[in-house]
Amino acid sequence: MNREEQEVKKANESFYRAFESRDVREMEKIWATGDNIQCGHPGWRIIRGWNAVMESWRCIFEDTPTIHFNLTDVSIEICGSLAWVTLYENLTSSVEGQNVSATILTTNIFEKSSGGWHMIHHHGSAVMQPPPDEGTPVVH
Amino acid sequence: MNREEQEVKKANESFYRAFESRDVREMEKIWATGDNIQCGHPGWRIIRGWNAVMESWRCIFEDTPTIHFNLTDVSIEICGSLAWVTLYENLTSSVEGQNVSATILTTNIFEKSSGGWHMIHHHGSAVMQPPPDEGTPVVH
Repeated sequence: MNREEQEVKKANESFYRAFESRDVREMEKIWATGDNIQCGHPGWRIIRGWNAVMESWRCIFEDTPTIHFNLTDVSIEICGSLAWVTLYENLTSSVEGQNVSATILTTNIFEKSSGGWHMIHHHGSAVMQPPPDEGTPVVH
Repeated sequence: MNREEQEVKKANESFYRAFESRDVREMEKIWATGDNIQCGHPGWRIIRGWNAVMESWRCIFEDTPTIHFNLTDVSIEICGSLAWVTLYENLTSSVEGQNVSATILTTNIFEKSSGGWHMIHHHGSAVMQPPPDEGTPVVH
């Protein structure tokens, strides 16, 4: 992994630490400021623009007492000042006193500026397929 | 909409025409060739690389007698040789003789080369939220 990929990996991991902190001020540091940022939470409609995206995080954090992410199958692609990361968010959370777990397939896009890599797009969706068995050939 | 945006819009629409054709040879023309292409069909795990992505389209086309897309809320962003498009695929299809309809939130990423814009990433996910009422203020 080269230096740029390491920077993107770090920016991506910072996003999940901000998510786990459930502090919108931490989440604000992750995103590029602008009207062209976009966010699609699992099952939600698309949210576009800084104010609406941050308001969505505020709502999610209010309804999430705890959340933890284990990231797997992380792929990082970089082209110029853009990077896109795909991965599975294997999350465990607590909803109304019940522990829940889910696997979310996510596309995160980051843009590099003088201030480093910032998120400009997040799209997560629930995975319904079971993971491939170890004994099953995987087409890659 | 400037000329580049029109080109991306056309590439994006060509993807849906290829999908409607249910002809994998048409779909092959849409995608960049390479091991770094990625495809997340709604509910599926991520598929990476040309062979696996095209095999997934072959499977989907075999199981899809008809499908039609009405694209709404299309947003096109371009940075250098990359473009990302978000939209709703309002699809109607026929599954085992039954008409079905669904709204899919999609992120499509295209890369520009000497041969024009080609898809390198497709991520679709089922939308569970109803569309906003016309009378309800929408935060954008």
